[in-house]
Amino acid sequence: MKKYVYFFGEGDASMKMLLGGKGANLAEMTRIGLPVPPGFTINTEACHHYYKNNETWPEGLEEEVKKNLVELEKKSQKKFGDPVNPLLVSVRSGAPASMPGMMDTVLNLGLNESSLQGLIKLTGNERFALDCYRRFIQMFGDVVMGVDHDKYEEILSDVKKQVGARLDTDLTAENLKVVISRYKELYKKVTGEDFPQEPFNQLKKSINAVFSSWNNKRAITYRKINKIPESWGTAVNVQMMAFGNMGNDSGTGVGFTRNPSTGIKEFYGEYLVNAQGEDVVAGIRTPKAIKDMGQDLPAAFEDLKKIYSILEEHYRDMQDFEFTIEKGKLYMLQTRTGKRTTQAAIKIAVDMVSEGLIDKKTAVKRIDPASLNQLLHPQIDRSVSLKVIAKGLPASPGAASGKVYFDADDAERVANEGTKVILVRPETTPDDIHGVVAAQGVLTSRGGMTSHAAVVARGMGKPCVAGCEAVAIDLDKKQFQVNSLVVKEGDFISIDGGKGEVILGQAKTIPPQLSDDFQKLLGWADSIRKLGVRANADTPNDARKAIEFGAEGIGLCRTEHMFMAPDRLPAVQEMIMAQNVEERKKALAKIEPMQKGDFKEIFKVMEGKPVTVRLIDPPLHEFLPKLEDLLVEVTTLRVKGISGPELEEKEKMLKIVRGLHETNPMLGLRGCRLGIVYPEIVEMQVRAIIDAACELDKEGVKVLPEIMIPLVGHQNEIKIQKEILEKIAKETLDRHQSKVQYKFGTMIEIPRAAIVADQIAEYAEFFSFGTNDLTQMTFGYSRDDAEGKFLFFYEENGILPEDPFQSIDLDGVGELMKMGVQKGRQVRPDLKCGICGEHGGDPNSVIFCHTIGLNYVSCSPFRVPLARLAAAHAVIEDEGKVRDTSKFDK
Amino acid sequence: MKKYVYFFGEGDASMKMLLGGKGANLAEMTRIGLPVPPGFTINTEACHHYYKNNETWPEGLEEEVKKNLVELEKKSQKKFGDPVNPLLVSVRSGAPASMPGMMDTVLNLGLNESSLQGLIKLTGNERFALDCYRRFIQMFGDVVMGVDHDKYEEILSDVKKQVGARLDTDLTAENLKVVISRYKELYKKVTGEDFPQEPFNQLKKSINAVFSSWNNKRAITYRKINKIPESWGTAVNVQMMAFGNMGNDSGTGVGFTRNPSTGIKEFYGEYLVNAQGEDVVAGIRTPKAIKDMGQDLPAAFEDLKKIYSILEEHYRDMQDFEFTIEKGKLYMLQTRTGKRTTQAAIKIAVDMVSEGLIDKKTAVKRIDPASLNQLLHPQIDRSVSLKVIAKGLPASPGAASGKVYFDADDAERVANEGTKVILVRPETTPDDIHGVVAAQGVLTSRGGMTSHAAVVARGMGKPCVAGCEAVAIDLDKKQFQVNSLVVKEGDFISIDGGKGEVILGQAKTIPPQLSDDFQKLLGWADSIRKLGVRANADTPNDARKAIEFGAEGIGLCRTEHMFMAPDRLPAVQEMIMAQNVEERKKALAKIEPMQKGDFKEIFKVMEGKPVTVRLIDPPLHEFLPKLEDLLVEVTTLRVKGISGPELEEKEKMLKIVRGLHETNPMLGLRGCRLGIVYPEIVEMQVRAIIDAACELDKEGVKVLPEIMIPLVGHQNEIKIQKEILEKIAKETLDRHQSKVQYKFGTMIEIPRAAIVADQIAEYAEFFSFGTNDLTQMTFGYSRDDAEGKFLFFYEENGILPEDPFQSIDLDGVGELMKMGVQKGRQVRPDLKCGICGEHGGDPNSVIFCHTIGLNYVSCSPFRVPLARLAAAHAVIEDEGKVRDTSKFDK
Repeated sequence: MKKYVYFFGEGDASMKMLLGGKGANLAEMTRIGLPVPPGFTINTEACHHYYKNNETWPEGLEEEVKKNLVELEKKSQKKFGDPVNPLLVSVRSGAPASMPGMMDTVLNLGLNESSLQGLIKLTGNERFALDCYRRFIQMFGDVVMGVDHDKYEEILSDVKKQVGARLDTDLTAENLKVVISRYKELYKKVTGEDFPQEPFNQLKKSINAVFSSWNNKRAITYRKINKIPESWGTAVNVQMMAFGNMGNDSGTGVGFTRNPSTGIKEFYGEYLVNAQGEDVVAGIRTPKAIKDMGQDLPAAFEDLKKIYSILEEHYRDMQDFEFTIEKGKLYMLQTRTGKRTTQAAIKIAVDMVSEGLIDKKTAVKRIDPASLNQLLHPQIDRSVSLKVIAKGLPASPGAASGKVYFDADDAERVANEGTKVILVRPETTPDDIHGVVAAQGVLTSRGGMTSHAAVVARGMGKPCVAGCEAVAIDLDKKQFQVNSLVVKEGDFISIDGGKGEVILGQAKTIPPQLSDDFQKLLGWADSIRKLGVRANADTPNDARKAIEFGAEGIGLCRTEHMFMAPDRLPAVQEMIMAQNVEERKKALAKIEPMQKGDFKEIFKVMEGKPVTVRLIDPPLHEFLPKLEDLLVEVTTLRVKGISGPELEEKEKMLKIVRGLHETNPMLGLRGCRLGIVYPEIVEMQVRAIIDAACELDKEGVKVLPEIMIPLVGHQNEIKIQKEILEKIAKETLDRHQSKVQYKFGTMIEIPRAAIVADQIAEYAEFFSFGTNDLTQMTFGYSRDDAEGKFLFFYEENGILPEDPFQSIDLDGVGELMKMGVQKGRQVRPDLKCGICGEHGGDPNSVIFCHTIGLNYVSCSPFRVPLARLAAAHAVIEDEGKVRDTSKFDK
Repeated sequence: MKKYVYFFGEGDASMKMLLGGKGANLAEMTRIGLPVPPGFTINTEACHHYYKNNETWPEGLEEEVKKNLVELEKKSQKKFGDPVNPLLVSVRSGAPASMPGMMDTVLNLGLNESSLQGLIKLTGNERFALDCYRRFIQMFGDVVMGVDHDKYEEILSDVKKQVGARLDTDLTAENLKVVISRYKELYKKVTGEDFPQEPFNQLKKSINAVFSSWNNKRAITYRKINKIPESWGTAVNVQMMAFGNMGNDSGTGVGFTRNPSTGIKEFYGEYLVNAQGEDVVAGIRTPKAIKDMGQDLPAAFEDLKKIYSILEEHYRDMQDFEFTIEKGKLYMLQTRTGKRTTQAAIKIAVDMVSEGLIDKKTAVKRIDPASLNQLLHPQIDRSVSLKVIAKGLPASPGAASGKVYFDADDAERVANEGTKVILVRPETTPDDIHGVVAAQGVLTSRGGMTSHAAVVARGMGKPCVAGCEAVAIDLDKKQFQVNSLVVKEGDFISIDGGKGEVILGQAKTIPPQLSDDFQKLLGWADSIRKLGVRANADTPNDARKAIEFGAEGIGLCRTEHMFMAPDRLPAVQEMIMAQNVEERKKALAKIEPMQKGDFKEIFKVMEGKPVTVRLIDPPLHEFLPKLEDLLVEVTTLRVKGISGPELEEKEKMLKIVRGLHETNPMLGLRGCRLGIVYPEIVEMQVRAIIDAACELDKEGVKVLPEIMIPLVGHQNEIKIQKEILEKIAKETLDRHQSKVQYKFGTMIEIPRAAIVADQIAEYAEFFSFGTNDLTQMTFGYSRDDAEGKFLFFYEENGILPEDPFQSIDLDGVGELMKMGVQKGRQVRPDLKCGICGEHGGDPNSVIFCHTIGLNYVSCSPFRVPLARLAAAHAVIEDEGKVRDTSKFDK
């Protein structure tokens, strides 16, 4: 017989897949002697069975639940449905990965007409007991039976109005009896049956409701964003209720063992006196700081302080916990690895190494490379004056500017049209998730550091300012007001989530700096990783940034801007319009000294480090006016009857642009095809590179140029280009009487190149996978067209599991890369292989690159730290530690 | 010591690679006792050595040549350079593949001042001997020493003028002595040395000249066209001269053992009395038919008739031979497998099977599938009246129309610009080859069936009318005249190479019919081949043609025209401009009955045979006006200040076209991507297909529809399309209460699809390789752009060995296909695999498809016979008979 139910303490923290994160941690906390209200967990296998078998329970589950219920009655010394000493329980979801607020919960279960009396007697507080019962009926009706939440609220408002009560707490016991009676009528009207009185029946229905909530819309969206497999399912925790709302000696709170925003070790958290847990999380009442809890609840605070250290000693990581104080007694309801900002994660990891809690490798492993994006976000430029209009809680760091929108749907719509949006809400709920996804940042007027908006934004690495009470939002008018200042939908604001500031207009941003802790951690990563990390840099500025972020060379120096710059464009156009080789060479001769200068500057910055220069790549028509524009201009002149030199010139240009026009320019005359048809362009560039290198070499600057041919698909292409290149290089070196070394290689970005990599490796000393184009051609997607036209639809509808332009498509593009490396090294065992597509800065792709034996990845300078860390993770994974699910708990 | 020289009879016909075609056949003829003038062959290995070692002879070659010369003197009972009984020899090239007229020859070698006297004495004909000497000096100077041919002709003309001679034959011995003296002066002036008197010196220089001629421009062009490897090299044949110009009891001729144009078994060939061989081949004098040779040379004709049967009995193939009659004695100079028209090849093969000379498999193997294109060329439509202006020899069958050009360079230039050209020349020479390549057909006013123009045109499968003396060509005026009619450069004419007719203007052409012999041969091919052969057919007419040509089904029925037809375009545009699904469905409902009708017609024609229907493929903007046109129209209206409904409508359309505009439409929203974003289009098409099938099924027509999804790259795409399709198919079948079977499959045309074919085969019952798109994406070529912009350059410069859109690129695209088949069948062992790109009609590609285990190829109806034959060849090759070089001899 399979075991589906575990009493708290039977399992432990390692059993997350089976018991869910919450269940495993409740078990673990129970084991290590923390004061946890007793209860049991129905495991995820029961949930799998439920879904696979038409929403039924597996055989034996009902027996097991009943047996554990008996045990719970014994432990709590209370009895389910008892008119004297009734056991009340909570029924909560608990998936292997944390999904805060996404699934359903039922509280105060076990109350009925009879046990209500028991609760009254037990607490001596009829009003409290009736309020519990009222809440239970409402929650059960809403969550389990689908009775509209608003209908209950209408009844409550109605009764309040009738008796002249302002707040819920103004209602007397008698008033509540009226409410309860009308709630029950509503329940019967909607469901067609009486409110269930039998506690086990209540329990069974609630457990099913929790199972079902695994597939509600909120949960599905959250899973998609956080890449949590649908197949995991949720466990269900049934636990004795502890009441934080039994008076001023009671309370509830949430805490973190360290500050999740800064990483500082302090008593961090919030609590409310005389409240239930959801009051804190929902952000409706603004809670107090835990460090001040000694004033309200001194004994419980002392207990709690001890628990801070017990938790960290035991879990060796920062914990996020929930607690309730019932009449002075502290109960721990939950603990889990605490979510934190990346900044905090780094500080905590580095501090824990110095505290001896963890080793360096664990510290490195703790930082999700993808999360570094957060830190590497631009910050607000404080050197200019800013109009700070309000200050709220610094709920998630980073800076963002955008147009204000007040509704998640609106925000999503305009963001899809390319507008940058700041979502402004009184508070967010799980129903707003798509708006948060679409927005650059979030501003709320209510809620604390642990409110929904704060937690979700931190998880996504987006800036958030929460609980900014100075902002008075009017959802109907679609505007907010700060004192007399009105900000309307569509107006620009900026937020600094690190400082909690709201700034009027579009603030300027500046690139981020790396903290000392961050540098230290990256140093540890460097000592672990095997992959080299280079940067894609086209200018001396990029190159300097690359060095600052730890790049070991330039993996891709595009030369497009060396043709496109305004001072060169006339000469480039002259070159394109040339009628023969001589004219073309004359025009190129004008560009050559400028390109030589460009190369010298970059080589100088990168002294002693390799620089991979890619020769001309874009189709020539990119350097000319657009066909459509010319067509309109020429038509206009013609219709107006204006002839003469202006029209003639435009017509001449139109003719040339038409001649160069291509149906599918991505697949046309570009890359090495250009270099083969017009070898003089390649000759000019090679001479400029080698000249630059020789001149610097004479000045004592060590230069390591690597010349790269784009778009090779056939061995003869690289063969021909190599011949041209070697001839020019030799001539140039001879002229300088120099012995500067250079390398010659190719991009692998055409599917055929990967397939015949062995033939190509005969000529290439290095390969650099151009995974942007390789992805485009392997999928047959033009990225420009696909993203607007169907790629989003594909992702939204799960047709593509991931955007292949973000993360390497392992089955298709990845296979070609693997083939390319293997075949290339068959012929040239020391073939240096790298990647210079955008994927070089994507953590999963970096790990894949390590796996197939690349020598280095190259990415944008800002992503270099991320790549360094991901490369270290790859080694750690290699050491046999399979990737665990812990990343989903942060 | 290596052996480089073989005396005739030492080798045999199998030694073509070593001795060249001519040498091997001279050896073979000698062996079987034919009257061959004695001689020896210097093999191709000597040629290889010559090229690899700076144009020097290998060690020992000179000794061997001298030894064989002694043997030759013995056999001929003459002596080299002898003043009494001098041995004269010819020095001829002979490559492993026949390259008629492409390389150099020296005749009458061995003559000098002393042996000239011997020849005079021996023949008793001073004029003849002097003429030989004159010819030798001219030929040696031209071929060996590069003295300009025209300079010799000037001297000759000059002397003729001085003495008042009209023809060469009018020159007396004394006149010839003057010519010889001036020839020698010219020789000395140009070369700086006296004309060589030492015969062995003459010989050595001539052998080198023949080696060198392997790499002259003509030979290189011919090799490129005929795909003859440069590495083969040529052998050199040194043979005793036999003189056909020793008087009226002498003569020379060429013959074929069967008619090379029709295949009929008859005494076919031409001869000239008192002439040397080159007089026949050059086409300067119009020769007489061999069948009439009994009148001029009765004894030799009797000998020749016997040789006709000896050759066919021995070689078991039609032979092309050369002979000379010296004073009544017949000498065989050469025999080789005769080139023939495809029509003749088929008749000969089929006849030889009935004559018991060869078996059916050999007959099938004898026909080069590529050559069938010739037969499948359109013919002149004779149902309309034609203005036949002249009649010449039917030198190469087929019909062609084009503009008249008189110069090979002009013809090539305008043909490259897309103009269809008929090359008109008095006669063609090897220097005109590029013009013949560029032209649709050739017309000459001189020369016979074996003239250069006739041979070359037949080899290329182009129509040719030769020896059309009624056509008076004026090269200077660039026109020709037939009686009073003047046809100028650029005027249209048509030629029927099967009938020898020249027709004024552009004649209409009609599709070819298959002869009974052809049908018989294809029947034998069918019994051998294992690959199925289907046709690509989009209309009932195409389908009928496909059946007629033996297609076993339709491998690709494109549905583009079912949207594009004028009666549907308004509804299609309505569909595209629809604002929502309902509007779109309304528009589709208008198209559905028309498409159903289309399918019914095609299914009916293909009764009992499978029909693969491809669902909508092209991007939607193809159904709308062009962006550029709209832009000009809208700009024009705006500048003119015309507003109102016309402008509004155009602006609306412009907006929609802009919205659908794509940077790279080939890689955009098309194929199954359309079907996924707009599933209602797929639903409509599937319903139309299944409806059509059910209705025909009720009428008792057996229908085998196969529904094919284009452009699949990810398994989820086919999964989703399959779900839609199965739902609609089931609904439709249920509505008809029908059990019609259908298959569901996909194109494999995206590189990724081939790589993940195992995942895709989970859903697809068949694969059809769309090698057009697969080639485009594997190479990263847009065919539209590449062909104009760089593909021609790539082929011209040998960067690509072949046009990958003609013949499958085995290393790249072929690898993907192989991978696709293997991975697909791993998952679904009975996966049916086919090809429906244009490559399905290319012989080498068909053979490759057989090799990788495809089930069928599908090609245009006209290419079906070709595919049937190529598929049989594939099996024959598989049986361990590697492809021999014989195809180069035809």
